[in-house]
Amino acid sequence: MSVPQVIVIAGTHGNEINAPWLLEQWIKDPELINTHGFRTSKVIGNPEALKVCKRYLHSDLNRSFRLKYLDDIYIQDYEVIRARELLAIYGPNGSNSCQLAIDIHSTTSAMGTSLVVYGRRPSDLAIASLLQSKLGLPIYLHEGDETQQGFLVESWPCGIVIEIGPVPQGLLHANIINQTRLTLEICFEELAKVSSGSAQFPKTTVIHRHIRSIDFPRSKDGKIEALIHPHRQGKDWIPINNGEPLFLSLDGSVVTFDEDKSLVPVFINEAAYSEKKIAMSLTQREVLYFSDSWKESLKNLFI
Amino acid sequence: MSVPQVIVIAGTHGNEINAPWLLEQWIKDPELINTHGFRTSKVIGNPEALKVCKRYLHSDLNRSFRLKYLDDIYIQDYEVIRARELLAIYGPNGSNSCQLAIDIHSTTSAMGTSLVVYGRRPSDLAIASLLQSKLGLPIYLHEGDETQQGFLVESWPCGIVIEIGPVPQGLLHANIINQTRLTLEICFEELAKVSSGSAQFPKTTVIHRHIRSIDFPRSKDGKIEALIHPHRQGKDWIPINNGEPLFLSLDGSVVTFDEDKSLVPVFINEAAYSEKKIAMSLTQREVLYFSDSWKESLKNLFI
Repeated sequence: MSVPQVIVIAGTHGNEINAPWLLEQWIKDPELINTHGFRTSKVIGNPEALKVCKRYLHSDLNRSFRLKYLDDIYIQDYEVIRARELLAIYGPNGSNSCQLAIDIHSTTSAMGTSLVVYGRRPSDLAIASLLQSKLGLPIYLHEGDETQQGFLVESWPCGIVIEIGPVPQGLLHANIINQTRLTLEICFEELAKVSSGSAQFPKTTVIHRHIRSIDFPRSKDGKIEALIHPHRQGKDWIPINNGEPLFLSLDGSVVTFDEDKSLVPVFINEAAYSEKKIAMSLTQREVLYFSDSWKESLKNLFI
Repeated sequence: MSVPQVIVIAGTHGNEINAPWLLEQWIKDPELINTHGFRTSKVIGNPEALKVCKRYLHSDLNRSFRLKYLDDIYIQDYEVIRARELLAIYGPNGSNSCQLAIDIHSTTSAMGTSLVVYGRRPSDLAIASLLQSKLGLPIYLHEGDETQQGFLVESWPCGIVIEIGPVPQGLLHANIINQTRLTLEICFEELAKVSSGSAQFPKTTVIHRHIRSIDFPRSKDGKIEALIHPHRQGKDWIPINNGEPLFLSLDGSVVTFDEDKSLVPVFINEAAYSEKKIAMSLTQREVLYFSDSWKESLKNLFI
């Protein structure tokens, strides 16, 4: 059984500086995080944006991995060029090919330590299940959103996003660094168990399936007219029920959540999302029953 | 008795977006904040930086009001040009002259709602004392720091900074907006009382006098090597004592505060200050006895 090469990516968004800092410390001290024998490529996703502490220079790198961008030679955005480069080097057919991608982010939302998976690839669900089982991490299952596509990890055979917050952009925070480090350590520990056949997969996995995103109330010229209601700010992962407040205007008027079915908001007031017209995303909490195919799919990475 | 014109400035730093948003709402609805008859000029300090959500384009506007910059025609930084322009219009000798400046900021530090005054101008101390008396706001008295000079409000006969946090840069937050609005409302209410002669000044005012700033531990190439210790993060205004932790490295080593006298840290882990090599500033808590000269100085603005 071979061991897959893992690409650990930090700074896919250049103003999320905690994971890049951890990566730099890890490169200086390779013992900092025990990879249990896994070979890793430690990569800064968007080094030019990191230098200037901006999310991106031309376009969001974590929306740039769409075939229609990658294949269109007329698109010369820095981030699309960088996406091509990352794939040429670390992609599944790259010169230094990796089979598994771990992309580490931070957020201004109170997401705690959480995981994001895109679609329902069995091997992604297998890793996410293991991490949820060990660390209790909530999982945001992003699927069926035509407006948000081209995520980095989707270009690797298996990949997950670690998303930790709240933390401002451009600010190092010990708790965020420690949570990132712990999650990576447990991730490699569990992958090693998968490799050796001793991994204990849970029977069920709780996911939060993306339903839709909602925007702030805006004026005709596109300006934000109401704020996240104080009762909802910082309440990621907590269900919202019919009639509960969503937005607050300065004249005191309140926009409420008017839907018979409770949903679970995530990425509430993520600073980078207001330009994407997302005030929060709404999810539905669901239980998935573990399938042996997930385990097999993950194990197949090791063959 | 005449009434001074007040300049209310928001967005002196272009990534501190809460006060600019409030200002915009206030311009749309002049009744939003009762100025008790005071005429106000509502001004975005750094509109170009606000457009791109950056602290500044070329240099920090709130360090650009130094005579040696303002008078040097060879300095053509956008912010220095903007400083000259603000003074030409709203300065004490400007075309639309203002006698009092209120400059509204936000911070990633857990400063709560607080006031900053520069030096010990009697009229500044008078307003700060009134606001502390009404709202309990802590006051940071910045003086004697050769490395940080040229603050905006110093160019007006009287001026204070309202500083509110924690909030990430580039993110609207209802509590921050509400606190800003409340502080402005009380400020005008108290100024009106000064104008009518009914203001009740407190006998003493607690200030936190700037002693010095300290930087993060850094490597020889200037990179941050240790983080604000989790026990200190978010603990602005809380005294630090001999032997208590300041910084934490990933190898677990701790840098402690080694000084016999307790001091009070402020602006702990403000994102914009790492480039200024400031991890936090240390202050000494002191009680000032109210002087009638403060009151007279403030009243003189109204003559």
